[in-house]
Amino acid sequence: MQEEENYETVPLEEPDGLSEERLSRVRQELAEARAKRKRGRTGLVIVNTGNGKGKTTAALGVLLRSWGQGMRVVMLQFLKAKTGKWGEIRAAQRMGVEIIPLGKGFTWESDNLEHDRALAHQCWEQCREKIESDQYDVVIMDEITYAINYGWLDLETVLNTLRNRNPAMHVILTGRDAPAGLVEYADLVTEMREIKHPYKTQGIMAQKGIEF
Amino acid sequence: MQEEENYETVPLEEPDGLSEERLSRVRQELAEARAKRKRGRTGLVIVNTGNGKGKTTAALGVLLRSWGQGMRVVMLQFLKAKTGKWGEIRAAQRMGVEIIPLGKGFTWESDNLEHDRALAHQCWEQCREKIESDQYDVVIMDEITYAINYGWLDLETVLNTLRNRNPAMHVILTGRDAPAGLVEYADLVTEMREIKHPYKTQGIMAQKGIEF
Repeated sequence: MQEEENYETVPLEEPDGLSEERLSRVRQELAEARAKRKRGRTGLVIVNTGNGKGKTTAALGVLLRSWGQGMRVVMLQFLKAKTGKWGEIRAAQRMGVEIIPLGKGFTWESDNLEHDRALAHQCWEQCREKIESDQYDVVIMDEITYAINYGWLDLETVLNTLRNRNPAMHVILTGRDAPAGLVEYADLVTEMREIKHPYKTQGIMAQKGIEF
Repeated sequence: MQEEENYETVPLEEPDGLSEERLSRVRQELAEARAKRKRGRTGLVIVNTGNGKGKTTAALGVLLRSWGQGMRVVMLQFLKAKTGKWGEIRAAQRMGVEIIPLGKGFTWESDNLEHDRALAHQCWEQCREKIESDQYDVVIMDEITYAINYGWLDLETVLNTLRNRNPAMHVILTGRDAPAGLVEYADLVTEMREIKHPYKTQGIMAQKGIEF
């Protein structure tokens, strides 16, 4: 684990009475230090995929960590409609963090593909605006893979926006069956594999505070 | 996904003027409703294991969710020494949640096994006290598998405490190589598998807000 030294700032005050030559050298050192710091803050594209639990949940863990570090973070949720029941939305309200449910209105019916495609594009436009606004250090697009896999949203559209983002911005994408092109582009990909699942094997219901 | 109805309460006020028979029936209904509610709140034993990212991070996501639901949650971290740098610890301070780093002093040297074993038992005692206090809805023991796998802590000691806990309490255990006996006992087990890792493949450092 790297230490936090990467994020140390260099002194910006310059002592009085420096020669032009010395001043020029100091300025160059400052520029190099800033460039180094920027490289240290490489923005990652992170994908949480697989059939197991923990894809959204781990993204929420990053939301918590980055919020704890005073970073600006937003989560856009493709499949969730706004209701009062979600623990993460209640938590976000208490924390003053944006978690935006986009999923209201999806029918998941193949006979209504045009409707769902139009809706998915509205959702995507909100994501794109957040990324291009450059107002965030971390942007999470939760369960976006479904919109891609259902044919509602072109992967290339998503990748183009990722390629053109501020290189210091972290982006997290979650959902089952992450497309190969996304895995290829991403920096960090984790598969959450189901080893044992109580709702299937024991008939236990989804639990408050755990699943929602 | 189950709805929140499981957690609805039944009316506790009984109207005046009920016959003994009616009162008895109402009481029986109340008892059954309480038992049903208790079954609805089955406490899960959750294990996040595997060689990939997201084990601790997903546990933090549950911490966030359960806190959002107004539940009482604590995370005990076996391998972390208290420093100011961790995003989750800074977040916890802001949220008023307990995240307790236990890992100060571990040498990880085989020639100091007795020292590490004694230390691991001190850590475990703090976990056991939290579980037995019955003051929490969710108890997270982060990276506890290492203490078990290094031979510092007996799995059976841990399982005994889990077996005797309040059955409504959720317990989350994280770390690589979860022992078979723990997987067998657990309700929900997820393996986080590394598909792609930027720190190895690209030499990118651990990033603030993401890893810490």
